[in-house]
Amino acid sequence: MEIKSHTISILVDNEAGVLGRVVGLFSGRGYNIENLTVAVIDKEKGLSRITISTTGTDIIVEQIVAQIERIVPVHRVLNMTVNPPSVEREIALIKIICEPRLRNDALQIANAFRADKVDITNESCVFQVVGKPSKIDTFVELMKPLGLAEIDRSGLVALSRGTKVI
Amino acid sequence: MEIKSHTISILVDNEAGVLGRVVGLFSGRGYNIENLTVAVIDKEKGLSRITISTTGTDIIVEQIVAQIERIVPVHRVLNMTVNPPSVEREIALIKIICEPRLRNDALQIANAFRADKVDITNESCVFQVVGKPSKIDTFVELMKPLGLAEIDRSGLVALSRGTKVI
Repeated sequence: MEIKSHTISILVDNEAGVLGRVVGLFSGRGYNIENLTVAVIDKEKGLSRITISTTGTDIIVEQIVAQIERIVPVHRVLNMTVNPPSVEREIALIKIICEPRLRNDALQIANAFRADKVDITNESCVFQVVGKPSKIDTFVELMKPLGLAEIDRSGLVALSRGTKVI
Repeated sequence: MEIKSHTISILVDNEAGVLGRVVGLFSGRGYNIENLTVAVIDKEKGLSRITISTTGTDIIVEQIVAQIERIVPVHRVLNMTVNPPSVEREIALIKIICEPRLRNDALQIANAFRADKVDITNESCVFQVVGKPSKIDTFVELMKPLGLAEIDRSGLVALSRGTKVI
C-alpha cells in the first residue's frame, strides 16, 4: 500500500477535551500529526472544525477515521483525500531580518508570490503568504538566503469542491 | 482580573505526542482551546510551531504557559498578548450554495473583502478570505443570507512585530 498524505476534516462540538481525544487517537498509535487546524466555525451551534494532515496508507488512515467516528461528540468525519476533489489552502507569516539591499530582493519575490507585507521596520519585514503548501515551501526556500528569521504556518484548511458538504 | 483572549506561540519538536501533551494541559484544567494551529516550520531541524488562542485572566494563562515550559521537548513558549506588538492573521474557506442571482451579490461582497474565488460551479462557490478574525466573522455574517453552506477556518497564525523572534 502506498504511503501518502491524507487530509481529514472533523466536525465536533466546541468543548474542552474533544481536541485532546482526537489528537490522542493519533499519538496513541505512534502517528504524528504533521499539521492541524481547529477553529470555531459556528458560535451559536457551538461547532468547531478540525482539519488534520497526516501520512499513512489508505487502510491505516481509514482505521483512524473509523475510530474518530466512534468518539462522542464527533458529528462527522471525512477523509478528503479518498473523497476528492477538494480545495486546500494554508497561510504563513514569514519574517526576514536583513539589510535594505537584500530586502529589495525579498520584496520582488514577495510581489511574484502575491505575498502581502504586514509589518516593516528598518531591519525587518513580515510577509503573509497564502496558497497550497508547496507554494509556501518554495517561498520559504527563496527567503533563506535573504535573512529568514521566523515562520508561523497554519496547516491546511480544506473544503470539498462543488456542492458537497461534510 | 480581566478575562480576555490570549495568543500563545510554542516552538516544539515535531514528534508524536507533543501536541497531545500541550492540548492536555488545557483540557486538564477545563480550559477550552478556541483555536489552534500546528505545522512543521523546519523539516531539517524537526521543528513545529503551535499557535493557540484561549480565553482567561492574565494570571491563569501565565500559569498554563509556565506549565507548558516545563514540558519536554518544548523549546520556547511566548504569550504574545502580554508581549506585544504582534501581527495575527487567519485564513478561511467559505462555501455558498445558491442561485446565480444571489451569487452576484456574494461576488460583489467578496471583491470588497479581497476574497479569492477558489472553486465555482453552477450552484456553488468557495471563497478564500484572509485577515484578522473579526474580518472573517463579518464576511461569514454577510454570506449567511446568500446560501452559506460550509466553513473551514484555520485559527490564528502570529509573529511578533519588528526584529523580535520567539
